[in-house]
Amino acid sequence: MAVETPLLDKVTLPADLRDLDRSQLRQLADELREEVIDAVSVTGGHLGAGLGVVELTVALHYLFNTPDDKLIWDVGHQCYPHKILTGRRDRIRTLRQEGGLSGFTRRVESEYDPFGAAHAATSISAALGMAVARDMKGEDNRVIAVIGDGSMSAGMAYEAMNNAGDLGKRLTVILNDNDMSIAPPVGAMSAYLARAASSGAYQGFRSFAKQLAKKLPKTLYEKAAKAEEYSRAMVTGGTLFEELGFYYVGPIDGHNMDHLIDVLENVRDIDDGPVLVHVVTQKGKGYAPAETSADKYHGVAKFDVISGKQHKGKSNAPSYTSVFGQQLVEEGRRDEKIVGITAAMPDGTGLTKFMEEFPDRTFDVGIAEQHAVTFAAGLAAEGLKPYAAIYSTFLQRAYDSVVHDVALQNLPVRFPLDRAGLVGADGATHAGAFDLAYLGCLPNMVIMAAGDEAELVHMTHTSAMYDEGPIAFRFPRGEGIGVEMPERPLVLELGKGRIVKEGTKVALLSLGGRLGECLKAADMLGAQGLSTTVADARFAKPLDHDLVRRLVKEHEVVITVEEGSQGGFGAFVLHYLSDEGLLDGGLKIRTLTLPDFYQDHASPARMYEEAGLDAMGIANAARRALGMEKMIVQAGDIRA
Amino acid sequence: MAVETPLLDKVTLPADLRDLDRSQLRQLADELREEVIDAVSVTGGHLGAGLGVVELTVALHYLFNTPDDKLIWDVGHQCYPHKILTGRRDRIRTLRQEGGLSGFTRRVESEYDPFGAAHAATSISAALGMAVARDMKGEDNRVIAVIGDGSMSAGMAYEAMNNAGDLGKRLTVILNDNDMSIAPPVGAMSAYLARAASSGAYQGFRSFAKQLAKKLPKTLYEKAAKAEEYSRAMVTGGTLFEELGFYYVGPIDGHNMDHLIDVLENVRDIDDGPVLVHVVTQKGKGYAPAETSADKYHGVAKFDVISGKQHKGKSNAPSYTSVFGQQLVEEGRRDEKIVGITAAMPDGTGLTKFMEEFPDRTFDVGIAEQHAVTFAAGLAAEGLKPYAAIYSTFLQRAYDSVVHDVALQNLPVRFPLDRAGLVGADGATHAGAFDLAYLGCLPNMVIMAAGDEAELVHMTHTSAMYDEGPIAFRFPRGEGIGVEMPERPLVLELGKGRIVKEGTKVALLSLGGRLGECLKAADMLGAQGLSTTVADARFAKPLDHDLVRRLVKEHEVVITVEEGSQGGFGAFVLHYLSDEGLLDGGLKIRTLTLPDFYQDHASPARMYEEAGLDAMGIANAARRALGMEKMIVQAGDIRA
Repeated sequence: MAVETPLLDKVTLPADLRDLDRSQLRQLADELREEVIDAVSVTGGHLGAGLGVVELTVALHYLFNTPDDKLIWDVGHQCYPHKILTGRRDRIRTLRQEGGLSGFTRRVESEYDPFGAAHAATSISAALGMAVARDMKGEDNRVIAVIGDGSMSAGMAYEAMNNAGDLGKRLTVILNDNDMSIAPPVGAMSAYLARAASSGAYQGFRSFAKQLAKKLPKTLYEKAAKAEEYSRAMVTGGTLFEELGFYYVGPIDGHNMDHLIDVLENVRDIDDGPVLVHVVTQKGKGYAPAETSADKYHGVAKFDVISGKQHKGKSNAPSYTSVFGQQLVEEGRRDEKIVGITAAMPDGTGLTKFMEEFPDRTFDVGIAEQHAVTFAAGLAAEGLKPYAAIYSTFLQRAYDSVVHDVALQNLPVRFPLDRAGLVGADGATHAGAFDLAYLGCLPNMVIMAAGDEAELVHMTHTSAMYDEGPIAFRFPRGEGIGVEMPERPLVLELGKGRIVKEGTKVALLSLGGRLGECLKAADMLGAQGLSTTVADARFAKPLDHDLVRRLVKEHEVVITVEEGSQGGFGAFVLHYLSDEGLLDGGLKIRTLTLPDFYQDHASPARMYEEAGLDAMGIANAARRALGMEKMIVQAGDIRA
Repeated sequence: MAVETPLLDKVTLPADLRDLDRSQLRQLADELREEVIDAVSVTGGHLGAGLGVVELTVALHYLFNTPDDKLIWDVGHQCYPHKILTGRRDRIRTLRQEGGLSGFTRRVESEYDPFGAAHAATSISAALGMAVARDMKGEDNRVIAVIGDGSMSAGMAYEAMNNAGDLGKRLTVILNDNDMSIAPPVGAMSAYLARAASSGAYQGFRSFAKQLAKKLPKTLYEKAAKAEEYSRAMVTGGTLFEELGFYYVGPIDGHNMDHLIDVLENVRDIDDGPVLVHVVTQKGKGYAPAETSADKYHGVAKFDVISGKQHKGKSNAPSYTSVFGQQLVEEGRRDEKIVGITAAMPDGTGLTKFMEEFPDRTFDVGIAEQHAVTFAAGLAAEGLKPYAAIYSTFLQRAYDSVVHDVALQNLPVRFPLDRAGLVGADGATHAGAFDLAYLGCLPNMVIMAAGDEAELVHMTHTSAMYDEGPIAFRFPRGEGIGVEMPERPLVLELGKGRIVKEGTKVALLSLGGRLGECLKAADMLGAQGLSTTVADARFAKPLDHDLVRRLVKEHEVVITVEEGSQGGFGAFVLHYLSDEGLLDGGLKIRTLTLPDFYQDHASPARMYEEAGLDAMGIANAARRALGMEKMIVQAGDIRA
């Protein structure tokens, strides 16, 4: 370990922290910050968010009796300092590595993680549930949710505050306002918070103390008054939260340990309803390269601590995200009706280039997927061509908007679904496992999946030219497989796949990003005398019936392969075959899908191996169907 | 037609309405109200909501240039007066009947319905999309969303306002505040609106005029000033909306035609950002039986106009909803950890009895399904036993909460899914078609479906006793099939189905409410010498592998039957059979599901017939699989 951390070394659990003197907390925070930087420099991961809450993390564990008091981190990507203080420091350099700590909070990982997260804006709902449970059980622990200003654009946060304000339960919500989610924040709420934060800084502490006193048991009033010198802790308008039934305190400086401790200590003892504490922090705080970077080192690769330089791996092919992003720009130049929509993730979804070239045709609606999709439906209803660029996993948040507003009305909204399949280090919460099932069941939906990065060019173009109804196209996280890129994009024929490699005995029918592995599997099988056809279905819906019929007729074994759950592509093939009586005479068919459990984070390759969706797994499925043994392959053999 | 409506008779389209003199609008509204009452007395349907917006509907079509101006009714169940004024009066007595008008707005029905609805809180998002499209196309039509105060508890409405306030587009949102969604409203927002409505009534109009003037082009200022006499139209605090970037006007009396016209005329011409007009109305207004009824005649059967007495059909068996509701009370008496959660629908979901007996253990969170589910997850994490009672179609709104907060963490939240399958008059927007697919793909989920009302008793009890993880149980809308009710509920063995009727040649494997039709189909087939087994799978997940194997082994044909889309139960059976090689030797299997299109409203029986999921459809599927012709059945034969 490069960092010297004498105080931190004494803290294994929050109980140890509580033995420290208040005056030592500043140093502890400094050491904790160094430790976070050093750990993430080794593992990569989310850095900026954690650095912003170092002092807050120390203050909360110092003042609240975790784990009996329930501390819920919204999203959870800011939890690395929390993990270090809650018995996980010895494993902190395994973050996001196979078998190591998760990059988010997880109930199975620690009793200090009372509610897992990774998607935004769930914390207040969960916290309210825990507060209600506490009161029903006659217990008296505290419940604290820490939520970022970015998450405040999500409807769930509002739903939860609306309910919490109504129920009046004892509950502390800490609004961690760093004026930055992943991208700079948008929306009226963001502007509102900025006003509150700026105006608040100039109010006196007296009004804070006065108002707080009304909420505090009498004995505590004197204590509160003592804190008067910390003049940045105060009550400003906060009207919006007050109208929703919260007692609003803030804004306070989230890096001033003394202020934090004093204010949170007072707030802790308010027992007659929900309190919102508005804490202003700086994402990336205390690490110069992060502070000065545009994204505040939101998510980083391994890096050099001194220079801040990230060690990004060599890329062999362009990422799917960038291929989509570039092609969308091309489409935008061709057709001015094309509009891009993102839910606070222009970078991640590849929309940045489009946004730069067509700022008036790009809409970042905040972390608000439901609105994003129905907003897109409104645009489509008026003849525009909207792309609602949302990760597969986050589109789950907008499912009813897809069903009720888009698919049912057959409106031509385009859904580029990035992060289809397994995503590696982000783990199960970010896997795009279910979209084939949850979209495939909807009438009117067209669903494509890109077999390689060239296909993604065609699919982006095809979606731009298709105006009959909703169309989704999914593609994996990460780099393409290095195929030659097309000079001009094609309009793919609706519901038609293609044969990529001709064979006679085994047919691999691939949908999506496992195509490369299918080709490798075909080579493996071919080397053993099992002549193998590889087909790329291109469309999960409508299904290419002719292709399926042909494969079934001409091969002894048919294997469907997809990076999705059961109930998706393979199911549609089986439904078709059974409907048509094509199973009546016997058919060796197997459907390879993601397994029916949540896979822990590891490298995507390892996760696909676990799922049996790598070349070896696919080849073995074919062999098993033929009654043959699994292949025994020596390390470094064909698979390398 | 019983009502005399001389003025209304002259109005076929809004253009006719605009030819009237302002002084005639009061009478027109009165006639329109009579016509709505008379029509709904014949058809049944949503009455209270439409009666509340009669004046508003007249005023909007009088002042705005529909259909060029886009008028979007949130939910759409208040649109009957709108339909009468927009060319559909001649069909108004076909409302919700097969082949007739929809009970909601629908794009395919009229150009005056620019965006269809039925679920709550989509209107502002859609309207904002249309406003953006207008500006991009360089057009200058207006866009108006009318949204109820109940819908304001939904996160989507907040997401949309947050974005609209940020974009500053010209857009009018009319908040139709009737202090009543389906049930009395809950939540802090509701309390906030009540404060605004009551305080506002005592402010002077002068401040309204003054503030409005700031927003109006100069020429309009004088016009605005003229309206001074209507002193209930004014600006109150409205802070919450102002903070979100809206210009807030109100509250105004939604039944005073003069006030409405004057204020809306002024508001119409505000062109520099979004405006929210707070209109106070009374649900059921102008029809005494509705005004005095607790639910304001939200949804009614056919009724007698004079007495208000509803002609409810004779019931032969208890409704599934009531069976669930009663059994949940039993469970609640047995286990004090059981908690009920509803998203503004205690009646519809059967929670009312539980709420009456256990008010402290029942939570109506407002129209806020996402929060409802994650709130339930928080309760479950702390050892309580929450029932998130949400219709199958509305659970779509909470899909990510189910995936990310419940299933992934394997928390024991119970999901009683009412309205599984087809629902009849409410049509495609309310069908519970997709839950087997969208829940079945999730690891950890247990999914049951009730074959009859006795089974629902067992499943409710089983879910109460099951504490290992999430469990859903689905049941249809409407009455049970009249089976004997059990004296005591059973704990069903996890993942085990049952044989209901033994046969030898055909096996019908039913999941859910089609069990009765399967039994009828078995009789039909038996009468033709085709001995038929009927099995009730009970569990879609985990699947009863032994049962499936046995049916497959012992029968020539196996037919799965479910009231859900492809990708659900039938798909799971096929996945299992193919995985196990049970298709290799040939198997006549067919999966009967709902069709891959949205079925228009009709009686459930007719809709199931269309889907091929009635006894005849099921029997014919078996016959076709055996290579036999369809049955020809004379009317009134076996099926009667």
